[in-house]
Amino acid sequence: MTDPHLPHHFVRTTPSGDTTERDVCDKCGYVHYRNPKVVAGSVVHHGGRILLCRRAINPRKGYWTLPAGYMELEETVAEAAIREAREEACTDIIIEHVLAVYSIPRLSQIQIMHIARLDKPEFAAGEESLEVELFAWDDIPWHDLAFPSVRWALNHYRQVAGEPVFTAFSNPPGEDGDMT
Amino acid sequence: MTDPHLPHHFVRTTPSGDTTERDVCDKCGYVHYRNPKVVAGSVVHHGGRILLCRRAINPRKGYWTLPAGYMELEETVAEAAIREAREEACTDIIIEHVLAVYSIPRLSQIQIMHIARLDKPEFAAGEESLEVELFAWDDIPWHDLAFPSVRWALNHYRQVAGEPVFTAFSNPPGEDGDMT
Repeated sequence: MTDPHLPHHFVRTTPSGDTTERDVCDKCGYVHYRNPKVVAGSVVHHGGRILLCRRAINPRKGYWTLPAGYMELEETVAEAAIREAREEACTDIIIEHVLAVYSIPRLSQIQIMHIARLDKPEFAAGEESLEVELFAWDDIPWHDLAFPSVRWALNHYRQVAGEPVFTAFSNPPGEDGDMT
Repeated sequence: MTDPHLPHHFVRTTPSGDTTERDVCDKCGYVHYRNPKVVAGSVVHHGGRILLCRRAINPRKGYWTLPAGYMELEETVAEAAIREAREEACTDIIIEHVLAVYSIPRLSQIQIMHIARLDKPEFAAGEESLEVELFAWDDIPWHDLAFPSVRWALNHYRQVAGEPVFTAFSNPPGEDGDMT
């Protein structure tokens, strides 16, 4: 593979040994593979309450979400989830388990959601958040959640909270993550 | 975001609202985000035996691996694992559970491994495999496995095989997936 930063002239063709058409530079042979993106995040609990962040940025500015975001290069999934909680909620979470692996095929997005805990209720709105709050289950703003997968993760967490062993979830049946 | 296929002139800079330096085209503003790649695969069982494929391609040509590979765009994780088993072992697997989420940070790779079953022992070597075989546990070629994560997944499968409920695994303690 040659330098991806040269000016390229891409044509659609199937690279040798591959089975799928890709964008291949017909000058230098560089193949522009396009891959799903990974979101890492967490349902963060403390004293029976759940941490949510109100989004300061689009998409879905003003709506509530879990601390989560795109993984960077050379991170583990857990490191990415911890970093996102630091960036969005200025807090240090302790990852406990993988809760779920969701697929949003229309967006070519994979979401890996954890259960994590806060040992101390110390947090604040990071640059991408308008506010950050711990919610009791009955106070969760269900009608103002940012994305379907936030609802999925909260409900999946609710099903297994406190269980020592549980099987990781995937999308609820029939749900593909599209907004309705 | 503008067309990623134009000739670009990239400079390292932090896009507005971002916290990390990226390659940004100073002619058209295109940001070349680079993200970890996702491998989807499976420990496939049938009658107490495990399906392995001997690699026909590099890296690790000639060594044994699980049916697994890079996800394509607009797939679910389960669809990708099923496609890889079809391509590498010419077989139709039934996904049962998420077994593990592994991180190989040096390669910026995430591996999502499932437990899957074969209802009929019908398989054959696909284009990327030299041979495909069902192995009893004691016959697994432990010294000729292609990657550390193949060993991890086999051992994790062994720990929970037959359990109705188990918690998804991540990397074994202290292991980062580098070959030793």
